[in-house]
Amino acid sequence: MTPIRFLFDYISPYAYLAWTQLEALAAKQGRDVHPVPVLFGGILGALGTLGPAEVPPKRDYLFKHTSRIAHRFGVPFAAPPSHPFNPLLALRVTAAVTSWAERRRLVSALFAAAWGGGGGVETETQVRSAIDTAGLDVTALLEAANTAPVKEAVRKATDEALGAGAFGVPTFLVDGELFFGVDSLGHLEAILRGQDPLDPVALAHWRQLPASVTRKKSEGPGKI
Amino acid sequence: MTPIRFLFDYISPYAYLAWTQLEALAAKQGRDVHPVPVLFGGILGALGTLGPAEVPPKRDYLFKHTSRIAHRFGVPFAAPPSHPFNPLLALRVTAAVTSWAERRRLVSALFAAAWGGGGGVETETQVRSAIDTAGLDVTALLEAANTAPVKEAVRKATDEALGAGAFGVPTFLVDGELFFGVDSLGHLEAILRGQDPLDPVALAHWRQLPASVTRKKSEGPGKI
Repeated sequence: MTPIRFLFDYISPYAYLAWTQLEALAAKQGRDVHPVPVLFGGILGALGTLGPAEVPPKRDYLFKHTSRIAHRFGVPFAAPPSHPFNPLLALRVTAAVTSWAERRRLVSALFAAAWGGGGGVETETQVRSAIDTAGLDVTALLEAANTAPVKEAVRKATDEALGAGAFGVPTFLVDGELFFGVDSLGHLEAILRGQDPLDPVALAHWRQLPASVTRKKSEGPGKI
Repeated sequence: MTPIRFLFDYISPYAYLAWTQLEALAAKQGRDVHPVPVLFGGILGALGTLGPAEVPPKRDYLFKHTSRIAHRFGVPFAAPPSHPFNPLLALRVTAAVTSWAERRRLVSALFAAAWGGGGGVETETQVRSAIDTAGLDVTALLEAANTAPVKEAVRKATDEALGAGAFGVPTFLVDGELFFGVDSLGHLEAILRGQDPLDPVALAHWRQLPASVTRKKSEGPGKI
């Protein structure tokens, strides 16, 4: 069976939370997981949208919401040393790992360092420590992360994510369907079980639905 | 016990889905629900953010996601005649109803017309039909909707939503806490039961967390 492609960025606590559940969920349905690092900021930039941490009231809610989800999942959760942080080195060392099993180990170690109460994943020292925890070759991966092909791999994965219709992280791709967000894990599981309730006729109807109003992007509440 | 304030706009299928669950959830915890119509477009405008239907890949996902949630909830779900549509008349007739019990009946009727397979809630004919279904005075409410105080009430509710930290719909306000989105109903229920797991120390820490990187809003994936 085809694997589930997990598009993520370490910057996202929602991606961390999804990762804590995904491997077990996939294994139960006999699926493999291929984690693909992408630059969330690149997706936002291409779509002209803002990340939740960039909208002040959303930033405040973000931590409450993700803390509550972590509690439901029963997984460790704590803020990294800073946020937003620069995830590029962590994304690149991840992309440098070619074995999927080894890459999954590194993703777990880096996510634990970012959101599971570890020391962060921004500096070389922090990333080095996570690679070590994953039992992988620290020197080789840090060197590889600095090469043009690995940098290009993250760029290309981000472009491919956009091409596949992704608008944020975490995004799950499987059997031609895209699921977004940690709250979609149940829907992902349903499709893996062959129980997706989506009605193609209703979907086709929605896709050709006219808009009867367009918002002026500048209007505020005073303009009602 | 204080009521749950439900901030919503008929334009949002997520708000509809939340509404189908909220009254029963609240009743189980001995709470009343006060539905407060706000203009989602006004919130987006004030924050400089985009609604999901305004980002093409999100628009496509929106219908799939909400259809799947509707299936889980076992509630009727169908696209309205057009989307986005102008919700103002529907919001204003709702704000014109002063009895909370009557207002809840009207909200149910208008949401059913918008997303439950009814005929829509944009035109006067459509709104008239929903008021009639709710057993309320069609002529009086349509007249009231056109008065300055009722128009002002929707404007003011939108401003107050922003003041309370809302960044979208549906938003639930209860006992000084804000919950966002249909996927937060479980968290809302937990707090009503006195089982909110939020750690005030961790939250205070998050609020003073430094950012170690700021995204240039213009950068795209080619800039990695």
